[in-house]
Amino acid sequence: MLTPLGPGAEFDRIRHFLAAARLGDAQRVLVGPGDDAAIIDAGRLAVSTDMSIEGVHFRREWFTPAQIGARAAHVALSDLAACAATPFGVLVSLAVARDAPPDLAESIMNGLRVAAEETGAVLLGGDLTRSPGPVVIDVTAIGTLEHAIVRSSAEPGDSLWVTGMLGGAASAVADLLADRTPDPQSLSAYVSPVARIREALWLAARALPTAMVDLSDGLAGDAAHLAAASAVRLIIDAPALPIHPSALAHGEEAAQSLSLGGGDDYELCFTARAGAVEIMRDDFTNVFGLPLTRVGEVTQGSGVVLRAVDGQLHSMPAVGFDHFAPRSA
Amino acid sequence: MLTPLGPGAEFDRIRHFLAAARLGDAQRVLVGPGDDAAIIDAGRLAVSTDMSIEGVHFRREWFTPAQIGARAAHVALSDLAACAATPFGVLVSLAVARDAPPDLAESIMNGLRVAAEETGAVLLGGDLTRSPGPVVIDVTAIGTLEHAIVRSSAEPGDSLWVTGMLGGAASAVADLLADRTPDPQSLSAYVSPVARIREALWLAARALPTAMVDLSDGLAGDAAHLAAASAVRLIIDAPALPIHPSALAHGEEAAQSLSLGGGDDYELCFTARAGAVEIMRDDFTNVFGLPLTRVGEVTQGSGVVLRAVDGQLHSMPAVGFDHFAPRSA
Repeated sequence: MLTPLGPGAEFDRIRHFLAAARLGDAQRVLVGPGDDAAIIDAGRLAVSTDMSIEGVHFRREWFTPAQIGARAAHVALSDLAACAATPFGVLVSLAVARDAPPDLAESIMNGLRVAAEETGAVLLGGDLTRSPGPVVIDVTAIGTLEHAIVRSSAEPGDSLWVTGMLGGAASAVADLLADRTPDPQSLSAYVSPVARIREALWLAARALPTAMVDLSDGLAGDAAHLAAASAVRLIIDAPALPIHPSALAHGEEAAQSLSLGGGDDYELCFTARAGAVEIMRDDFTNVFGLPLTRVGEVTQGSGVVLRAVDGQLHSMPAVGFDHFAPRSA
Repeated sequence: MLTPLGPGAEFDRIRHFLAAARLGDAQRVLVGPGDDAAIIDAGRLAVSTDMSIEGVHFRREWFTPAQIGARAAHVALSDLAACAATPFGVLVSLAVARDAPPDLAESIMNGLRVAAEETGAVLLGGDLTRSPGPVVIDVTAIGTLEHAIVRSSAEPGDSLWVTGMLGGAASAVADLLADRTPDPQSLSAYVSPVARIREALWLAARALPTAMVDLSDGLAGDAAHLAAASAVRLIIDAPALPIHPSALAHGEEAAQSLSLGGGDDYELCFTARAGAVEIMRDDFTNVFGLPLTRVGEVTQGSGVVLRAVDGQLHSMPAVGFDHFAPRSA
């Protein structure tokens, strides 16, 4: 059901926006946006939240409002992908300044709604409020699942894999911060990331991942989370890294840094039993048009180390995996 | 399970904080904070989200960090109360500036966690990130319920009720903005609101509310939401309003405005069949130490009108129910 709201310009805007929202499976969304809380009927759920702030996670001049919304949706939904959950719904809190363009909030929300609906998630509710300055958008993603894939179940002997190419988004950010125009591929990787939901479900349906994370902070940082959670060491083979072509254009050393530490890739990183993925890799690439790359292995120990082409192990270089704004400030 | 996180000062702080978090019913919280998403097993759920921003919803000099966190929890949980849901868990996104005091984020999170746990909700996960300035905190509250109480089911002939006293929080804000010291009761109402969870469950267990909202924007605004959702008119009896004593100290006219439009009360406003509540009102007050006041009735029509002591109906005065910062800016 769509619940009408009371008077006021702020509520008019939400009402207009809600009128366009699909309500999804009415059997399971018992009360949709507009009441105090959405009421849903669902069994085993994955829930995650992700906040994006103008000036920290994005700059408004680099995105259309719809892209800000779509990106926020995919960033939150990417955490569901990392658990191999099927998107069910999203809740959105959005703050814009009083003097923001009148359609900014609605455009962001619309971009978010469309992106969420493309993954099968419906808008369950939200909060629209004032910001003293930056646009703030926080998305809670709710997914359903039978068997969760967590970070903590990698075992020595497993192989380490990533989907897609790494460092494309970071390459675009590096260009933008240097007032260079990024090439279209890297700009798209940064501006319009796509949560790897279908890919995660495909992998999970074949029982391939033993542990999985999504790459939001960069492979170096996120692999460290997986290693810590599983109490194992991860060895990353530097020559195997699927470095995005746009990152390679920054030179070899910068490219490695961008692919390991740049963040914002939203690819999947997972461990699998040795030999299990190789036989299905071509199928994966045929279905999704994405490479699936073995980037290393799991051993006993702790932390993440880098293995050079000569087989020597090196501690992970100090690649930044914080957000760009504090780095550049 | 508690999943370890990787390296980094930011993650150290979260880890330290998570170590203190209860995990709740391990049968139902399958994966707690620290993985990509929390995994929960639950049937019928109410989910709601509420964002608070420094300078808009609160000023840091008026609150301890723990109070900021506790308030954010109660504000979000108040939406569950409005549906008569039992709190299950919360997800928290928190942004603080890079130059914030080192324990600010942890103190806010701790205050939030303690407050949530007091209502039976566990911390399910969150996101800690940088803010370019103001503290931003967004809480998603998840509750369980059998039968939802929504806004849209009030019927002509019902009576209109509110819990507690109105205008106390707004009275404190008015004092603070005028550099006056609020009295302790109104300051407490503003700084430390309490979600009326137990009260809502008590009322719902007796099948009293036909429709219910929580009072976040002030009775005038929130009653308008209820009226719109139910396609009815609400008549509010001005002389019946349970005006907080601190609001009365501002003079009669200001007191009525504060109680109708001040917001931040987080009391419950509900409709009930005529005569149903009166016989249980003393029980309610004995159990909760809170008044339960009949403030009007439901008729056919639309909108909210105010009935004066002489019985004349007046359109609702234009009382602000936006946040204080834009009003004062």
